[in-house]
Amino acid sequence: VTDPIAAGPPPPGRAEAEVRAAHRRYYAAFERRDLDLMSDVWEHSDRVACTHPGWRTLHGWGAVSGSWFAIFGGPQQLQVILTNEEVEVAGDVAWVTVDENLLDVDGSGTVAALHLFVRSDDGWRLVAHHGSPVAPQPGPHIE
Amino acid sequence: VTDPIAAGPPPPGRAEAEVRAAHRRYYAAFERRDLDLMSDVWEHSDRVACTHPGWRTLHGWGAVSGSWFAIFGGPQQLQVILTNEEVEVAGDVAWVTVDENLLDVDGSGTVAALHLFVRSDDGWRLVAHHGSPVAPQPGPHIE
Repeated sequence: VTDPIAAGPPPPGRAEAEVRAAHRRYYAAFERRDLDLMSDVWEHSDRVACTHPGWRTLHGWGAVSGSWFAIFGGPQQLQVILTNEEVEVAGDVAWVTVDENLLDVDGSGTVAALHLFVRSDDGWRLVAHHGSPVAPQPGPHIE
Repeated sequence: VTDPIAAGPPPPGRAEAEVRAAHRRYYAAFERRDLDLMSDVWEHSDRVACTHPGWRTLHGWGAVSGSWFAIFGGPQQLQVILTNEEVEVAGDVAWVTVDENLLDVDGSGTVAALHLFVRSDDGWRLVAHHGSPVAPQPGPHIE
C-alpha cells in the first residue's frame, strides 16, 4: 500500500476546488445556523440521506431540512475546527471525509464525518452526510 | 416532498441490482468474518475511507484491511439483520444507506451505515463505509 504522504496529493483540479468550496459552505451554514445557506448546500430530492451523530438516518430533503430547523433552533452554538479534510472526485460524484472538532460551553468532542456530493447544472450538491462521535480511546472493538 | 412509498421505487436496473449484491457481499463477509471476501468487496486504493462506530476515520486500504483483521480476530460473533436498505445509483457511483440491527450475547443495538461504491472494470467496489451507533432515543440535539 502506497504511503499517501510519500505519494503526494494530486494537484487540485477545478472539480476538487469546487467540492472543497461546497464543503466549506456546509460548515459555514452549520456554524452560522443559517438555514437558507444550508438549504443551498443540499440537493432537494428524495434520494438525500443525513445521519446526525446518534440519530437514525433521515431520508429526503423534507426530513433533512426539518432536522436542521430543529438543530438550528436548539440552544447550542458551536464552533467547529475542521481537520483531516480529504476530497476525492470520481466523475460527477465526490466524497469528503473530515473531522469536526466541536467546541461549546460544555467542552469539546470530535465527530468523524463523510459527505457525498453530486454535480448538477448548478454545481455540487450534498446528497449524503454521515457524522458520528469519535470515542476518546478508539480501538479494535465491535464493528 | 414526495412520499417515497406512494411514489413507488424505480424499477431496479442492472446497476442497482449489482450494487445491492455488492452490499450483501459486504455483510456476508462481516457475518462470516471472512477477510478474503471482505477484501474482494473493497477497492484497494489510497482513496478508500472507513469509519467504524466510535472510531476515527481510517484512510487507505492498508489501514482499512488492518481494522478488519483486528475486528475479525476479536471475540465477538455477530448476527446482523438489515433493515431500511436504500440504494441510489448516479452513473458509476452508488451509495447505500442501511440499518444494521446487531445481535450478540450482550444484547442488541442498531448501527446506521452509509456505503459508497464506485464501478470498476471488475464491478462495484466499496470506497467508503461509515457506521455509527443509533442512540435509543434520538432527538434534536447537537449536530
